[in-house]
Amino acid sequence: MKSVSIIGVGITRFAEHWQESFRELIAKAGIMAIQDSGLAGNDIEAAYGGCMASGRFIAQEHIGALIADELGLNPIPSTRLEAACASGGVALRTAYLSIASGAYNVVAVGGVEKMTEVSTEEAAIALGGAGDQETELFHGASFPALYALMARKHMQEFGTTEEQLASVAVKNHKNAMGNPNAQFHREISVENVMNSGYIASPLKLLDCSPITDGAAALILCETEKAKELGIKDAIEIVGSAQASDSLALTGRESLTQMDATTTAVGQAYKQAGVSAKDVDFAEVHDCFTIAEVIATEDLGFFKKGEGGKAAEEGRTALNAEISINPSGGLKAKGHPVGATGVAQAVEACMQLQDKADGRQVKNAELGLTHNVGGSGATAVVHLYRRLGQ
Amino acid sequence: MKSVSIIGVGITRFAEHWQESFRELIAKAGIMAIQDSGLAGNDIEAAYGGCMASGRFIAQEHIGALIADELGLNPIPSTRLEAACASGGVALRTAYLSIASGAYNVVAVGGVEKMTEVSTEEAAIALGGAGDQETELFHGASFPALYALMARKHMQEFGTTEEQLASVAVKNHKNAMGNPNAQFHREISVENVMNSGYIASPLKLLDCSPITDGAAALILCETEKAKELGIKDAIEIVGSAQASDSLALTGRESLTQMDATTTAVGQAYKQAGVSAKDVDFAEVHDCFTIAEVIATEDLGFFKKGEGGKAAEEGRTALNAEISINPSGGLKAKGHPVGATGVAQAVEACMQLQDKADGRQVKNAELGLTHNVGGSGATAVVHLYRRLGQ
Repeated sequence: MKSVSIIGVGITRFAEHWQESFRELIAKAGIMAIQDSGLAGNDIEAAYGGCMASGRFIAQEHIGALIADELGLNPIPSTRLEAACASGGVALRTAYLSIASGAYNVVAVGGVEKMTEVSTEEAAIALGGAGDQETELFHGASFPALYALMARKHMQEFGTTEEQLASVAVKNHKNAMGNPNAQFHREISVENVMNSGYIASPLKLLDCSPITDGAAALILCETEKAKELGIKDAIEIVGSAQASDSLALTGRESLTQMDATTTAVGQAYKQAGVSAKDVDFAEVHDCFTIAEVIATEDLGFFKKGEGGKAAEEGRTALNAEISINPSGGLKAKGHPVGATGVAQAVEACMQLQDKADGRQVKNAELGLTHNVGGSGATAVVHLYRRLGQ
Repeated sequence: MKSVSIIGVGITRFAEHWQESFRELIAKAGIMAIQDSGLAGNDIEAAYGGCMASGRFIAQEHIGALIADELGLNPIPSTRLEAACASGGVALRTAYLSIASGAYNVVAVGGVEKMTEVSTEEAAIALGGAGDQETELFHGASFPALYALMARKHMQEFGTTEEQLASVAVKNHKNAMGNPNAQFHREISVENVMNSGYIASPLKLLDCSPITDGAAALILCETEKAKELGIKDAIEIVGSAQASDSLALTGRESLTQMDATTTAVGQAYKQAGVSAKDVDFAEVHDCFTIAEVIATEDLGFFKKGEGGKAAEEGRTALNAEISINPSGGLKAKGHPVGATGVAQAVEACMQLQDKADGRQVKNAELGLTHNVGGSGATAVVHLYRRLGQ
């Protein structure tokens, strides 16, 4: 398999975009990525787009063709990938494999979601499709309820507290202050979170990621080709893995560990020849605060059960022991579901290129992204290093 | 890039399945394909599933994870692909690339759609998402209307007649009589089609493919590995290509040619080192009769404008000049949109393995499948040959 590097990134502001359409968002991110790569549109040989629920959000499927069309990339093959909130990560991995195969040299990856076109109730139904419609959503178990079960079990097993969960949100809102593309630019306190009202006990409003519109894009290039082209600032993907678990929470071995994450990260570490202690920063899938706590354990940064305490002690803060979600994460950067996995990779590149301004991780050499679908039925992990390092 | 072969196939009856769910359909096809391959479930390293609009049809996304879960394949990576009615073909091509890359040796491909859970109106909205929601469906241009425009233009430019279009449906219904998995087992006449009532003039009810539930599956294996395993009856994929065109019909150069098809088939013929005259049979995307006429021209079997006449003269009948849609095609076999592209590949394998019983193409050596998304914004072409021939 050939080596693959990222040579261009693009991202829109994550926000409620009342003046911009689905098409405009993906076109903006895509054009930005192409320009950032220094290549032209007709250098791109294929496109892969992550999008979760455009059928329900904007009554539009056929998103691959739409992206190629909107970016003027026809007649190249353009394909949509869906894995719920891991759609972006899966699009990145599929694009990675298409170059690794030798089929293409230069490939575009997009991620996009326009979530504000429907009512909150309709959005909940659309998002519920990430879990098991028949055994979960139909009975009222929407996503806050599923993650609340995980949180309650983590509290019971390990003594994790609501204040520890709150500290995750506080840290991510603080990091987002340095990210001009983040949805929220407002610092919050543990007290704010504790007083924000229960959505599904023990999770409160400020434990939950928001409804967001946005898009992100990457240009991938076969590494030797990138060197030939003399491209500077290329970021090599040194590990890529994806794993699955039962769609419904009820099928899991454990409520406090996501086996899809542990499987995927083990494969990615092995491919890259590294371990958790080598990782300088990680963009993890904090759709709810408990998800970040579980992720930091499953990815090997902390022992099982110690993630909540580590967050509370500030060990995951920017430039502390390990910088978790320097971008602000899903919680504060925002979570346009199909775009999230691609946006995480954009952040990884910007960090490794020393372009992350007010949220820069110092001496960042090895970055990790962790994108989850549903309550953990899909997990995708990538590892990144600056080319030549 | 490594060579890839199909070593197992599975398919459900295409029908209105009132007693079987989405899950049961894909599980049935998947298990059949695994059994047909002679391998075990834990030999499979990844899965790719094509599905167009499960969000709208059954309020369920995250189809990749669902498939892995239902087939007991966790924790392997399992990914859903969407390209409207070309979702199945795109899933096959993506799986093909994943093996060609050297990432995997054995991969499962599924295609599935359960369309009868919603009203006809809701189905029309779901299917309209294959076109351009903003410039087409919103204004009432559903799919019969879009293909009617193509038909009208083909009639105007080339003198194609409604009777010629009808002859496509008549032939496909006849072929389906030999296919136990076909939705319709009823021969029809040109007169039946002509009297079947206009849906969107000049297209009548019997010019249109039906609403269908069904699933199909394949097991793909790296060709050298298949030889090592001593697998008999393997079918090598000797050409694979995918191309895109504008999402909306209004963006096309021509209404009587699909550029995505001509681009893709040109690439596939080149890869296989063959031309149209070498093809013994083709499963083409006859979502409407005019689509088959245009396809047989675009794929190079007949000159532009002569497809209607060729159909009327019986040159596309089973074991005539070239056997088009021996399975019965989308028209009579049925069209569960996300499953269609995979089902076409199942048919190609059965023909090349001499297992197609009442619809067997004699001395079939080279088969082609042609899967289209929307009104032609995506086209996927594959070429197949029996391994060792």
